[in-house]
Amino acid sequence: MEESKMETYAAAGVQIEEAEQFVERLVKKARRQGHSNLWSGAGAYATVSPLNADLAVAATTDGVGTKLLVANELQTYNSIGIDLVAMCANDLICVGATPTVFLDYMAVGKIEEALVDGLIEGIIEGCDRAAMLLAGGETAEMPGVYAPGHYDLAGFALGTVTRESLLSGNLIEPGQKVIAVASTGVHSNGLSLARKVLADDRKNFAALLEPTAIYVKPAMQALSRWPGKLVGLAHITGGGWRNILRLNKSVGYRFSDLPPMPAVLEAISQKVSTEEMFKTFNMGMGLALIAKDEAVSDLVKIFAEHGHKAWVLGEVTENAGEVHIDKFKLVLKSK
Amino acid sequence: MEESKMETYAAAGVQIEEAEQFVERLVKKARRQGHSNLWSGAGAYATVSPLNADLAVAATTDGVGTKLLVANELQTYNSIGIDLVAMCANDLICVGATPTVFLDYMAVGKIEEALVDGLIEGIIEGCDRAAMLLAGGETAEMPGVYAPGHYDLAGFALGTVTRESLLSGNLIEPGQKVIAVASTGVHSNGLSLARKVLADDRKNFAALLEPTAIYVKPAMQALSRWPGKLVGLAHITGGGWRNILRLNKSVGYRFSDLPPMPAVLEAISQKVSTEEMFKTFNMGMGLALIAKDEAVSDLVKIFAEHGHKAWVLGEVTENAGEVHIDKFKLVLKSK
Repeated sequence: MEESKMETYAAAGVQIEEAEQFVERLVKKARRQGHSNLWSGAGAYATVSPLNADLAVAATTDGVGTKLLVANELQTYNSIGIDLVAMCANDLICVGATPTVFLDYMAVGKIEEALVDGLIEGIIEGCDRAAMLLAGGETAEMPGVYAPGHYDLAGFALGTVTRESLLSGNLIEPGQKVIAVASTGVHSNGLSLARKVLADDRKNFAALLEPTAIYVKPAMQALSRWPGKLVGLAHITGGGWRNILRLNKSVGYRFSDLPPMPAVLEAISQKVSTEEMFKTFNMGMGLALIAKDEAVSDLVKIFAEHGHKAWVLGEVTENAGEVHIDKFKLVLKSK
Repeated sequence: MEESKMETYAAAGVQIEEAEQFVERLVKKARRQGHSNLWSGAGAYATVSPLNADLAVAATTDGVGTKLLVANELQTYNSIGIDLVAMCANDLICVGATPTVFLDYMAVGKIEEALVDGLIEGIIEGCDRAAMLLAGGETAEMPGVYAPGHYDLAGFALGTVTRESLLSGNLIEPGQKVIAVASTGVHSNGLSLARKVLADDRKNFAALLEPTAIYVKPAMQALSRWPGKLVGLAHITGGGWRNILRLNKSVGYRFSDLPPMPAVLEAISQKVSTEEMFKTFNMGMGLALIAKDEAVSDLVKIFAEHGHKAWVLGEVTENAGEVHIDKFKLVLKSK
């Protein structure tokens, strides 16, 4: 289709550049506080705060973005909590942490039973899937900030990680394999664009609500079985496949093949350029694993046993900061 | 004034009863997950999740409620972040934890420099006051959920606590003293009612924005100097003075005197019944300390040295679940 008809994330109201400039200013301001004690650096999936020489607490916070508006339109509130837990829990495993405790922040215009009970039901289901305990939270009724029926959710997840099991990306080297673990759909990113594109396609619009896959259980099994061999996990979130570049700044990746694309992403791709798709959506890969050869076939098996299909699709290269996607002769660069 | 002219929190759009029913349903649902591992119970100021027999992580989440709308009206965004940190950090110290790491969730309709930079400036200032590190966060641009210029904030705070320093309320006994530590104004609770009452009183309306006091530094000094003598800390938040009843279900409290009331609360009290005031606002006491006699004068001194006036105003009684306020012949009961 013609370029001029292509939808972009910016046209859907999300300003990536402004967001990036803000983060830069933020990092500068925060720097004066001194972060030298942390085990994790800027861009890490979670904050890793040491308790002693051997043990640290990993923490992360996230929301579900405008997937909330999909739940609203479909008046279906009992799965968005799964997404909330997923967004946090899948980040924690990327630093090698074992997720333990989840807290939610729920702000509503007016406490309505169908809404808040549905939200909590999803959060509890998500915690079960992530083997986490829903251990606290805050429910705020804020008339004036939120209109009745409107709300927002934020999640906060804690985990623990030992110095030995910390994934810092430093073991990632050219030649290692990349395993793509299947996503269940759009997960919880790119929804502003997806909603716009699918506004008149009710079947695919409804599929946007499919909950985000939670990879905690197979990831924990994989990490404990293959220490030093499973060397990186990248949760594919906002920014699409560029997320994989967060793991180690001095390498790149080449994908010689692609995972099967969920139907909902296929539908979106009719109206969005290929490059924009890979920079916005998970494109069928909800989690990327970086592993040494000897671990690869067993890792695929572990994830499959937990219901998550996985495929060896690429490898680590020396092209620092670049993701090459052979099928589309596409090169994505760091955000 | 006539009772019929009195404003109530319910009339301001906040339904305490619905909120309480929701929490009850939530506790039932969460119970099936099993919380037996935690060191903190329902109603605790923070979730305390043990790492081993001696050490635990304390975590809490909170927002600033409709104080956001005061910041919006005054177009002053650089102090609301202090409130956000305060709400979380002051909760952590109530379980005896040392606050360490803060994460923020910021959701906006559109990233605008004056807004987001102001919010972060306040959060960083709050972290400095609380001796915490701003170690991560999420900034979500959600067009459609929030209109341009609208936003919400949630804070997540972590701390550490040893088994020995954990404050569980079990050392609180009748006869011990209650020290009231001064608040700086309304802090971050009761704002829906306060905004309504002061809508036409611009001077006092502006005073609503005064940042919440952060008690971390004197509290840490006090706890380390008086272990076993400073036996309870109650952050006075939503629910007003009834918060003190959260510490130990088998005792009550009697206040023979009251702290000086900040002018903004004095103004609100012209239109709100005394009982509603004590059940909604901090009434000049931002933090209550429960202590044994020998520690009392030094505790007052420690807080004063950090700029927080404090007064010995009451004592622990055997009237379980009741707060007696002599001056008004008022009895508050557990929420």
